[in-house]
Amino acid sequence: MARHTFGSDNHAPVHPEVLAAIAAVNTGHDEPYGADDVTAAAVRAVRHHLGEHAEVAIVFNGTGANLVGLGLALRPWQHVICASSAHIAVDECGAPERLLGVKLVELDTPDGKLTPELVEASITGVGDEHRTQPGAVSITQSTELGTLYTPDEIRALAGVAHARGMILHLDGARIANAAAALGLPLAGTTTDCGVDVLSLGGTKNGLLGAEAVVVLGQDRPGLADGLAFARKQLGQLGSKGRYLGAQFLALLEGDLWLRNASHANAMTRRLADGVRGVPGVEIIRPVQVNAVFALLPADVVPALQERFGFYVWDERTGEVRWMCSWDTTEEDVDELVAAVRSAVAVQV
Amino acid sequence: MARHTFGSDNHAPVHPEVLAAIAAVNTGHDEPYGADDVTAAAVRAVRHHLGEHAEVAIVFNGTGANLVGLGLALRPWQHVICASSAHIAVDECGAPERLLGVKLVELDTPDGKLTPELVEASITGVGDEHRTQPGAVSITQSTELGTLYTPDEIRALAGVAHARGMILHLDGARIANAAAALGLPLAGTTTDCGVDVLSLGGTKNGLLGAEAVVVLGQDRPGLADGLAFARKQLGQLGSKGRYLGAQFLALLEGDLWLRNASHANAMTRRLADGVRGVPGVEIIRPVQVNAVFALLPADVVPALQERFGFYVWDERTGEVRWMCSWDTTEEDVDELVAAVRSAVAVQV
Amino acid sequence: MARHTFGSDNHAPVHPEVLAAIAAVNTGHDEPYGADDVTAAAVRAVRHHLGEHAEVAIVFNGTGANLVGLGLALRPWQHVICASSAHIAVDECGAPERLLGVKLVELDTPDGKLTPELVEASITGVGDEHRTQPGAVSITQSTELGTLYTPDEIRALAGVAHARGMILHLDGARIANAAAALGLPLAGTTTDCGVDVLSLGGTKNGLLGAEAVVVLGQDRPGLADGLAFARKQLGQLGSKGRYLGAQFLALLEGDLWLRNASHANAMTRRLADGVRGVPGVEIIRPVQVNAVFALLPADVVPALQERFGFYVWDERTGEVRWMCSWDTTEEDVDELVAAVRSAVAVQV
Amino acid sequence: MARHTFGSDNHAPVHPEVLAAIAAVNTGHDEPYGADDVTAAAVRAVRHHLGEHAEVAIVFNGTGANLVGLGLALRPWQHVICASSAHIAVDECGAPERLLGVKLVELDTPDGKLTPELVEASITGVGDEHRTQPGAVSITQSTELGTLYTPDEIRALAGVAHARGMILHLDGARIANAAAALGLPLAGTTTDCGVDVLSLGGTKNGLLGAEAVVVLGQDRPGLADGLAFARKQLGQLGSKGRYLGAQFLALLEGDLWLRNASHANAMTRRLADGVRGVPGVEIIRPVQVNAVFALLPADVVPALQERFGFYVWDERTGEVRWMCSWDTTEEDVDELVAAVRSAVAVQV
Repeated sequence: MARHTFGSDNHAPVHPEVLAAIAAVNTGHDEPYGADDVTAAAVRAVRHHLGEHAEVAIVFNGTGANLVGLGLALRPWQHVICASSAHIAVDECGAPERLLGVKLVELDTPDGKLTPELVEASITGVGDEHRTQPGAVSITQSTELGTLYTPDEIRALAGVAHARGMILHLDGARIANAAAALGLPLAGTTTDCGVDVLSLGGTKNGLLGAEAVVVLGQDRPGLADGLAFARKQLGQLGSKGRYLGAQFLALLEGDLWLRNASHANAMTRRLADGVRGVPGVEIIRPVQVNAVFALLPADVVPALQERFGFYVWDERTGEVRWMCSWDTTEEDVDELVAAVRSAVAVQV
Repeated sequence: MARHTFGSDNHAPVHPEVLAAIAAVNTGHDEPYGADDVTAAAVRAVRHHLGEHAEVAIVFNGTGANLVGLGLALRPWQHVICASSAHIAVDECGAPERLLGVKLVELDTPDGKLTPELVEASITGVGDEHRTQPGAVSITQSTELGTLYTPDEIRALAGVAHARGMILHLDGARIANAAAALGLPLAGTTTDCGVDVLSLGGTKNGLLGAEAVVVLGQDRPGLADGLAFARKQLGQLGSKGRYLGAQFLALLEGDLWLRNASHANAMTRRLADGVRGVPGVEIIRPVQVNAVFALLPADVVPALQERFGFYVWDERTGEVRWMCSWDTTEEDVDELVAAVRSAVAVQV
Repeated sequence: MARHTFGSDNHAPVHPEVLAAIAAVNTGHDEPYGADDVTAAAVRAVRHHLGEHAEVAIVFNGTGANLVGLGLALRPWQHVICASSAHIAVDECGAPERLLGVKLVELDTPDGKLTPELVEASITGVGDEHRTQPGAVSITQSTELGTLYTPDEIRALAGVAHARGMILHLDGARIANAAAALGLPLAGTTTDCGVDVLSLGGTKNGLLGAEAVVVLGQDRPGLADGLAFARKQLGQLGSKGRYLGAQFLALLEGDLWLRNASHANAMTRRLADGVRGVPGVEIIRPVQVNAVFALLPADVVPALQERFGFYVWDERTGEVRWMCSWDTTEEDVDELVAAVRSAVAVQV
Repeated sequence: MARHTFGSDNHAPVHPEVLAAIAAVNTGHDEPYGADDVTAAAVRAVRHHLGEHAEVAIVFNGTGANLVGLGLALRPWQHVICASSAHIAVDECGAPERLLGVKLVELDTPDGKLTPELVEASITGVGDEHRTQPGAVSITQSTELGTLYTPDEIRALAGVAHARGMILHLDGARIANAAAALGLPLAGTTTDCGVDVLSLGGTKNGLLGAEAVVVLGQDRPGLADGLAFARKQLGQLGSKGRYLGAQFLALLEGDLWLRNASHANAMTRRLADGVRGVPGVEIIRPVQVNAVFALLPADVVPALQERFGFYVWDERTGEVRWMCSWDTTEEDVDELVAAVRSAVAVQV
């Protein structure tokens, strides 16, 4: 498929520097299963960003990272509190329920963000053996609705979680976009705010395919115990580990993570600026990272989708999502904006 | 790590043709999750080898392939009959029990191979609600002990399995080595012999990291139903699918699979020929594919391991395993043989 | 504890006829695990009420009945649609998620009742491998909020369920109360309306402790396959089965089930009539079976609870639940009514 | 069924004192779910026998007790070491694998008894993420083969288990028979020997149907945490708890447990003495509690089974099991002995 799409940041190719890093380690034999030097260097790079005491396990994908990380903390009768729009609730085909055996308590939010009030209000029946007990709060940064938590908001959620004996898990499939948008380091809304377990995204940030479980929780001794076993048992241990390690090393040892994320965010702003004010097009969520959610006349959508590729986010409202990635160009954006303008004009 | 090892075929690098294929698809956007054209071509290539009606799902690793494939057929109260040396029994950290919830009935064998007699003898309590019921026979080709099933042996196992209402699953992490050694196509000990579900190995045959679940069973209607959901739910669906598809395409559209496997097998024969007859060295299993299992004086092992890298296979007997891969050279082999000769000579 | 309570119908004792039936079978040896003649007679009695083709498995408790019954139909990537007030969602400590590995899609309702519209609206992403797929609709009759489905309402839900390839499961912990209130046989809102799997309640209807899974679904061939294995594997197979069978036989071979349920319902109406119109007391849900849900001044609750025993149903609103059972007497009711009147009067 | 059987101790009826105790608590209302005074008294009785610090949860059956108890200690990647003849391995339809998700490492033994040597030899790959890790040793007292552990043998197993970081679980479905045979209190081969979790049998000792999980492990702080949740989530929490409590109270507050067990053991010795020396009959296992395992001519078995009821224990060898219970009389035994003598004489 030659055309540029606005479907998702995983439609994008691998960043050339990442592919070069993979090619660079493709010489001779090495230890499998992450016991190689490249992976060791990648782990050091993760720690450089997220804290020297972080425990790190590289896995294949986001579902894997979320499962391995959440599973460390939970007993079977505990539940995970999350937004009803969370990836773990909507887009993982019930993997948390099946593989971890836990219940998700899914809370409706206006913007994909949990609040201490929502979390607290969801907690009833503590100590009642008939009810599952709160075990983890899971948030996504940036959220599935393209919104951002501030550091203070995450700190407050960590406070509630810890006061209630829960861990705070952060699904950071797009943590780079969040950090770039906030002008903060990767630790800025994670380690520094009391997050205990982070799913560190890589694939949407330009990798071929790699994510990492990063266990941060220093006030929860033993949280990382069994991390290696959990990764293996859940089917997330890569055989030729150096090729996973090389990807993260390429992303994190320099500023590639930031360049990629900043660029995607900038293109998204350009896109939002371009369509904002076009009659018949309504941007219905804050544009904070690399997604624009918009309403536009339903009958212009199919033809636009054919040319550009993007998702109808909500079948009921017709809301569409446009997403930019590390490789989106100004021309790509301008072409979409022009097409939207023209389609809507014809339609009106 | 610069030195060549005989540890396992997953210590080897990616074959250059595979890496080139990955690089070749790294242009522009494409559909994620295996909905891309490259993956479609890879699926066609798999079908070319294994049958036009095969259902194919590419996954990340061998554990994933085994779980997704076995899970299609089993109800929770059914068990899987396998050799006690099987990878699913020994090397998957209990993933089948945890993720599928099923019991493995592990049978001791002299050579890693199940027989109809062993399978039949293991079946008792059919219809008794207190006992798990036989649901699948799982065999490995080539086995974890470097041995091979003949087509007739697999046909006989399929016969027993099907007569008992079970499926026959084949863990083909090294199916290419087996086919090469037997002078048969990939279908020769799979599709042609009644295998219902195949874990098609790729990583050990020169890929960066990809395996496939191939559902063959034509006399079991509906066996592949839910294959896509099972892959997703078990955490084995790759985001940027084209990079997985490209690997299999490179392996299977030409004869790379066969070149790689034949070479590894040939180097292994050279190694076996080289150490056979060396006083103090005893080859204790048939050398049929790409592994040599040998006993040698215990005190020469550590120094040899330091230079070459290989595993002590059985801590109790001191048995070692040497394994060759697609990139093992005659010089690598000769160097090991010379070192073994010399170490043993000194020791004697 | 001597006092009569309005806490729940499981605070009540065993009906004397049931205890007598248990004592009557306590002679000599018998086959264990439900292979005895008493259990066979009990199964015939269940079939007499619910259909000759029903498959029946007696289990220990309601959670067990729901798990065994729901588990028959579901593949791991399918979800169960239920009201957010359903027992399986609220009061089973996450057992469905853990033991069956399935997701519950919990829908908010005003009255504890699903509707075809609610069910349909919850279904999105059919065929999308990222989403769990609809596998079962589970309703409760009478509901956890004391309300009733009419036969037509259940028929309509069965229609939606079957049209979507789902089964309709009915949690009948209080099916006897429902049938009595509607003036229908036990089949009247189950077999006759397309219910596929019924959890047939016994304990709340006067038994010592026994429930039954009743598989009705005739247009779903094979639905009951594995019922015996599922019961055993899920820990719900009783050893000395005759004592479970004897309970159901006592309940169902005559009209004990109806006498008990009708009496509890009548006492509940008396209670509702007694407190209705008392200033400061508001009955906030329809009184259709054996529960009254009411709001009353918060500061009178603790003293009343001490004398009578009942639950605050909703900690946030202060809503209380009073429930009558087979042994509640007119005097018990009148005493509670008088106490409520007097407490509220003092308070006002 | 009028005839007396030697099939199993769960073919026997409920002891009259137990039934009387159930009837005695059948007055008025009481707290459900084990929060009643009868259950509290039963728990005190258990503690009187097994230690004041024991945590106790009454459950429905032996499978339930084993699951709840084992589940407390295990992380998902840990395995349970047991004899291949253990009830959890053979007779629970894979419930441990499915409900707990753990692997059983089943060791062959000559007599159903584990030894420290067998346990130690089974432990390999400690710390290797590809292998499950040892989490619990589970033994049965008396064993499924009618044999007994001495206190010293159990102490030694506790030593190995604890040294390896495992718990020692004891399936005490017939712990009363064991204690009676050894002339020891119930604590004699449990609490006093380092057992951490006990499945305390009741049903085979004369109850209608009740077992208990007893958490003893004092050097494992927090082992009982979550006991109530585990019982509920695994479907083992009884609604009208007083009827379960009353059974254990009847069994344990006096010496009913001992009378019942001693009687069954005595009848078994009488039976063994009666058939020993009969030509053609060979007692092939030690007769230590309430089971006799014997070989006799295959063609006499069916007619004997028709008259008396007993199991062919091993389909391959023809070995039969005769088991006595609390209600077996001398006449019952003598009748069986005479029939065996006569059948064998005819046959010879």
